[in-house]
Amino acid sequence: MKSTRTVQKILSNYEGETPGVKANLNRMLMTGKLGGTGKMIILPVDQGFEHGPARSFAPNAPAYDPHYHYKLAIEAGMNAYAAPLGMLEAGADTFAGQIPTILKVNSANSLMPSEQPKTQAITASVDDALRIGAGCIGFTIYPGSSAGLGMFEEIAEMRREAAAKGVATVIWSYPRGEMLDKDGETAIDIAAYAAQIAALLGAHIIKIKLSTDHLSLPEAKKVYESEGIDIASQAARVRHCVDSAFAGRRIMVFSGGAKKGADSVYDDARAIRDGGGNGSIIGRNSFQRSREDALDMLGKLVDIYKGRD
Amino acid sequence: MKSTRTVQKILSNYEGETPGVKANLNRMLMTGKLGGTGKMIILPVDQGFEHGPARSFAPNAPAYDPHYHYKLAIEAGMNAYAAPLGMLEAGADTFAGQIPTILKVNSANSLMPSEQPKTQAITASVDDALRIGAGCIGFTIYPGSSAGLGMFEEIAEMRREAAAKGVATVIWSYPRGEMLDKDGETAIDIAAYAAQIAALLGAHIIKIKLSTDHLSLPEAKKVYESEGIDIASQAARVRHCVDSAFAGRRIMVFSGGAKKGADSVYDDARAIRDGGGNGSIIGRNSFQRSREDALDMLGKLVDIYKGRD
Amino acid sequence: MKSTRTVQKILSNYEGETPGVKANLNRMLMTGKLGGTGKMIILPVDQGFEHGPARSFAPNAPAYDPHYHYKLAIEAGMNAYAAPLGMLEAGADTFAGQIPTILKVNSANSLMPSEQPKTQAITASVDDALRIGAGCIGFTIYPGSSAGLGMFEEIAEMRREAAAKGVATVIWSYPRGEMLDKDGETAIDIAAYAAQIAALLGAHIIKIKLSTDHLSLPEAKKVYESEGIDIASQAARVRHCVDSAFAGRRIMVFSGGAKKGADSVYDDARAIRDGGGNGSIIGRNSFQRSREDALDMLGKLVDIYKGRD
Amino acid sequence: MKSTRTVQKILSNYEGETPGVKANLNRMLMTGKLGGTGKMIILPVDQGFEHGPARSFAPNAPAYDPHYHYKLAIEAGMNAYAAPLGMLEAGADTFAGQIPTILKVNSANSLMPSEQPKTQAITASVDDALRIGAGCIGFTIYPGSSAGLGMFEEIAEMRREAAAKGVATVIWSYPRGEMLDKDGETAIDIAAYAAQIAALLGAHIIKIKLSTDHLSLPEAKKVYESEGIDIASQAARVRHCVDSAFAGRRIMVFSGGAKKGADSVYDDARAIRDGGGNGSIIGRNSFQRSREDALDMLGKLVDIYKGRD
Amino acid sequence: MKSTRTVQKILSNYEGETPGVKANLNRMLMTGKLGGTGKMIILPVDQGFEHGPARSFAPNAPAYDPHYHYKLAIEAGMNAYAAPLGMLEAGADTFAGQIPTILKVNSANSLMPSEQPKTQAITASVDDALRIGAGCIGFTIYPGSSAGLGMFEEIAEMRREAAAKGVATVIWSYPRGEMLDKDGETAIDIAAYAAQIAALLGAHIIKIKLSTDHLSLPEAKKVYESEGIDIASQAARVRHCVDSAFAGRRIMVFSGGAKKGADSVYDDARAIRDGGGNGSIIGRNSFQRSREDALDMLGKLVDIYKGRD
Repeated sequence: MKSTRTVQKILSNYEGETPGVKANLNRMLMTGKLGGTGKMIILPVDQGFEHGPARSFAPNAPAYDPHYHYKLAIEAGMNAYAAPLGMLEAGADTFAGQIPTILKVNSANSLMPSEQPKTQAITASVDDALRIGAGCIGFTIYPGSSAGLGMFEEIAEMRREAAAKGVATVIWSYPRGEMLDKDGETAIDIAAYAAQIAALLGAHIIKIKLSTDHLSLPEAKKVYESEGIDIASQAARVRHCVDSAFAGRRIMVFSGGAKKGADSVYDDARAIRDGGGNGSIIGRNSFQRSREDALDMLGKLVDIYKGRD
Repeated sequence: MKSTRTVQKILSNYEGETPGVKANLNRMLMTGKLGGTGKMIILPVDQGFEHGPARSFAPNAPAYDPHYHYKLAIEAGMNAYAAPLGMLEAGADTFAGQIPTILKVNSANSLMPSEQPKTQAITASVDDALRIGAGCIGFTIYPGSSAGLGMFEEIAEMRREAAAKGVATVIWSYPRGEMLDKDGETAIDIAAYAAQIAALLGAHIIKIKLSTDHLSLPEAKKVYESEGIDIASQAARVRHCVDSAFAGRRIMVFSGGAKKGADSVYDDARAIRDGGGNGSIIGRNSFQRSREDALDMLGKLVDIYKGRD
Repeated sequence: MKSTRTVQKILSNYEGETPGVKANLNRMLMTGKLGGTGKMIILPVDQGFEHGPARSFAPNAPAYDPHYHYKLAIEAGMNAYAAPLGMLEAGADTFAGQIPTILKVNSANSLMPSEQPKTQAITASVDDALRIGAGCIGFTIYPGSSAGLGMFEEIAEMRREAAAKGVATVIWSYPRGEMLDKDGETAIDIAAYAAQIAALLGAHIIKIKLSTDHLSLPEAKKVYESEGIDIASQAARVRHCVDSAFAGRRIMVFSGGAKKGADSVYDDARAIRDGGGNGSIIGRNSFQRSREDALDMLGKLVDIYKGRD
Repeated sequence: MKSTRTVQKILSNYEGETPGVKANLNRMLMTGKLGGTGKMIILPVDQGFEHGPARSFAPNAPAYDPHYHYKLAIEAGMNAYAAPLGMLEAGADTFAGQIPTILKVNSANSLMPSEQPKTQAITASVDDALRIGAGCIGFTIYPGSSAGLGMFEEIAEMRREAAAKGVATVIWSYPRGEMLDKDGETAIDIAAYAAQIAALLGAHIIKIKLSTDHLSLPEAKKVYESEGIDIASQAARVRHCVDSAFAGRRIMVFSGGAKKGADSVYDDARAIRDGGGNGSIIGRNSFQRSREDALDMLGKLVDIYKGRD
Repeated sequence: MKSTRTVQKILSNYEGETPGVKANLNRMLMTGKLGGTGKMIILPVDQGFEHGPARSFAPNAPAYDPHYHYKLAIEAGMNAYAAPLGMLEAGADTFAGQIPTILKVNSANSLMPSEQPKTQAITASVDDALRIGAGCIGFTIYPGSSAGLGMFEEIAEMRREAAAKGVATVIWSYPRGEMLDKDGETAIDIAAYAAQIAALLGAHIIKIKLSTDHLSLPEAKKVYESEGIDIASQAARVRHCVDSAFAGRRIMVFSGGAKKGADSVYDDARAIRDGGGNGSIIGRNSFQRSREDALDMLGKLVDIYKGRD
């Protein structure tokens, strides 16, 4: 797939990387309605694992069927579709080659005893990705958890195998655990740190949450204040996170969180765009709406990322 | 073994799967008195491990002998016979090729200290299955246990190896552990969640328990109520569980639990049938009855699944 | 070594097993004074590990020397000699081929802190057995310990390797741990359960302790009483344990415990014989007596198992 | 690269080592403004992992960009540049072969719960080093931590693989953990012990912190006093540490710690030089200054190590 | 190296062992001033790891240099020199082939938190031994520690690999841990038990400490008293330990402990000799004296073991 200059520029940041990885990044960046712009929207459907089937799919019952999501992602012109193994396999033949897929290789769930260290189970492998034609693996880390170092070691190893086999890596870097209170999980200093860790671990695409202007770590707070780092607006915070991932040398997308009003979703996207982020991962806000509403919303998001809104 | 259209339709849901796995699923679906109907009854005998020999076999003493179960399953026209390694091996030559077998590869027991995290020991391997001619492995997971993530990782790995070697996977998805009280273990929201997790882990056949109309997780309860999910009857709950496993794209069978009156067993089967489930796994209710009573009961269950009752 | 009919009958129960394993079982069953009868007496010397050298060997000082035990087992016409690696190696050249040997591959000791979960260290491998000409490995499991599941996984894996290499497996199934009080360790329901677990794990020879008529698990107690299982005499309890190991399809031997009066040893043997057990594993009661006394006692045991006493 | 006599003398201490390792040590010792003198200055940039991006790079914003550090190290004539995987990869093509690189293969972070045993995550491998052209791996151990033995085992294994593949090993030996209070972490007896452990583990280059004249372990304190070991000056303490690493047979460099006044940095370097140390690893004190100030400071340090100041 | 009869007799006890192991044992037994006598003195230098450099080497400063110990061992006519990896490597070229070396493959240190289970880190491998020309590995076990079983498994595995590659194994069997109080660590019943365990684990050379006449385990105390085992003199205790290691079929050497008066060292050696032990491992008592004093003392020890004193 011939790249645009914008995309070529992005790919050139992945120094020392295998051509296979670059080809898969290129495929995602050149696919869909945002193809060639350097912007991305990804449909992720791992909520069945995280929250259970009813909470995830009952609001829009056709979404119980794995085929629904493939079709939605294709029709909406997304760059890629991300899901756990069973979910991707259930349409792997029917939709083979129709859209880049990201195999989510670890997962948590809402049935885990709450006193346990926060972590996830590895439920798929790099070879699973190759087998079902997924060009990318997705892995969640929890910086702040007592199980965090173990998760870093797991993804470091999987990423090494993946890259050697030409598969790209997305890291969901989600601060969580004994070290952090609820405010800390979305504090801007923590978000920037999460981005940096993902970059250092070798993520090709970094997925973090949008953050607040809260500062959680006292030692960090001092520096933000003394150096006057701009964290006043969401766009400024996005920019700081992008800087924190090798000064923009890594693709960074932001997750949308729980279902909310459409305007709020659009505002988020504008902040991501204005702060220099590469795009959105948008799950519940798309598949928990009716198919028509979801297509409308995703179309509008495309417009925003194209700078038309 | 030439498939019926019904069976071909079921097999077509297993996208991206190896022909070996499909062949083994086909073999089970085409075997026995329900062969070709898309319905299944499986005889499982792992109670010797779970509850000890006397509690399992003393009520019908011939059942101490492993050959008894092979014969019962064959004569009753079951689709498959499932048991731990030692049990299957003890008849592996005599009954070679007479009935599809499922090697139960992990097991718990009643001698485990109760304070321990709920888990099972892996007591057999995929290569053991191949060696003794079993076309399928069976694995229990305990969503809700602090050892649950470890079990997910174990079966994810075994399932990968099994599928690559043409062996199908049945997951016994049994919610249990620190996270759940006694009512929670059989609550419908938990049962549906257990089905979803098994599907996401790549189970080819999902085995869960029949559930009550209790709702255990507060976040889930809200959704069941706001979305008006029908959980009033056992058939409705079966249907919701079937939906929760990829909208019916996975074979789902239900276990019968402790020995009880025959009518109750028949009612369960009618609910499974009417809710769109694929069948029953029925152990103690068959082998703890005399051989004649068991054959009668199993014959009647066949009739129910054929819609004749 | 040409088998008797009795032995051929026993071997025929090991369905699906490698010819190598059957050959090694045959060798043990055809060796010594009980050769061909289907009965066995085995000399085990792992007490140096379990209780230390002085407690084990000071009562009969020549027994400090590993050669002593080889000679005793050979002269007394035992079916096999079992010991840990160092012990077997110390006579491996001198007595090569003179008697079947069983390599005890895990061991506990009396220096372990008592609060630790009950388990053993794996101190030898299947390849060690092959290297020193041992046709059999011996492994202890502790059903009832919080470390029990781990031990089941260890022996499941070693047994698989052993059988593939033609080496037979003896499981010492010794209930012990947090789950059990002192009475529970020798209760008949627990003993039968231990036998069943060993059989399910694929043991070729099962070694358990003689039991009392105590019933430890409430759920089991109910069944023993309602089904009227005969546990009144030692012979009846032996028979129930034999039934519990696949209705007699597995060789079962019983251990003798601490040194005691000769008459008591003989009574045990008669009960084992009358209950359908295959024989005795008799350590301290032989090597802690003088060589002459031991030979007398073992000769008498042979007579008992031959039905002459 | 032809060596000076001084460098050849140093290399001759690495007895029994592979020519590949010696070649990589030679490359570092012959590179930059100190090339051939046997002295070294290394630029390390792992603070993004340890302290987060803002605390590390906001004081000098161009340092967010990984290319900045490559350029600084090259322009300042450093012997090598050390960083975690993502950081090195981000310039691996652009600067290939321009300066020896050290891949830091394990990392800690400031988001780890403080009650956890002190340890680090392994985030890169020896093969990663080979792939990106790094001739050396860097590994931190924490003597004094309850996780310390595990870290020793990790580096022992990685060092073995590295040396076999011609890659040299730097050990950051940083006492930390339950065993040590704040004063203990920089006590001279602990520093010398840390140097000895690194040497025994097979480090080719040992990196420790400068120490105080505090004595932490009572048993050691007695010996320092009875034997009259000179620990009065920083230079004397450096010499004692050098002695403690095989009497000077191993390259030893010292880390600079948090950003501080330039004069203090120079005094440290003079003490290292006068005590017989091989040089400095200097991170925050260089990249948290403006590029001009950093180049000035590093130039001055070169002069000090050349004995011109 | 042609053996004496005495040495051939010792080697003949290693039944079932590889010729490579026997060749390495022969090399040690035929080397140095005691060559051919069946007696041994070994110089061990792992105190730098165990106690730190100052406590180990400051009393005799030249001992900071690894070459010092090679030279001392060679000049004093020792049978072998034992040390951790870094220490041996530092003279591996210079002294290649000059003296048999024993690679100490695990090590503890004085910086480990005291509440931790007592164990050591594995810091070198069998292949390291082969690479640097060491014919023997040395491994410490701590019977009595909650980590003891793990250590037994480690050495069982390393010993297997070592023997297969022709490398002999020395086990330092040092009772320590939660199970034992200070008196228990040197009690004669514990020492004999430690010797037995090392023998059962397959040690070719067993290293234990000299013991007191204390009896630690109540069950053992009973037997020592009822059987009248002679433990009155050090020589009698040595003999009991030698008996406890397969009735003298294994080489047994005794460690000297902390530095003490020369007469005391000589008395120990006489007791070892008279009790039938094979010799001494003597570290601090040699290298913490001046070179001249050490050579005098070691010369005198040789005389004692030759029966001339």
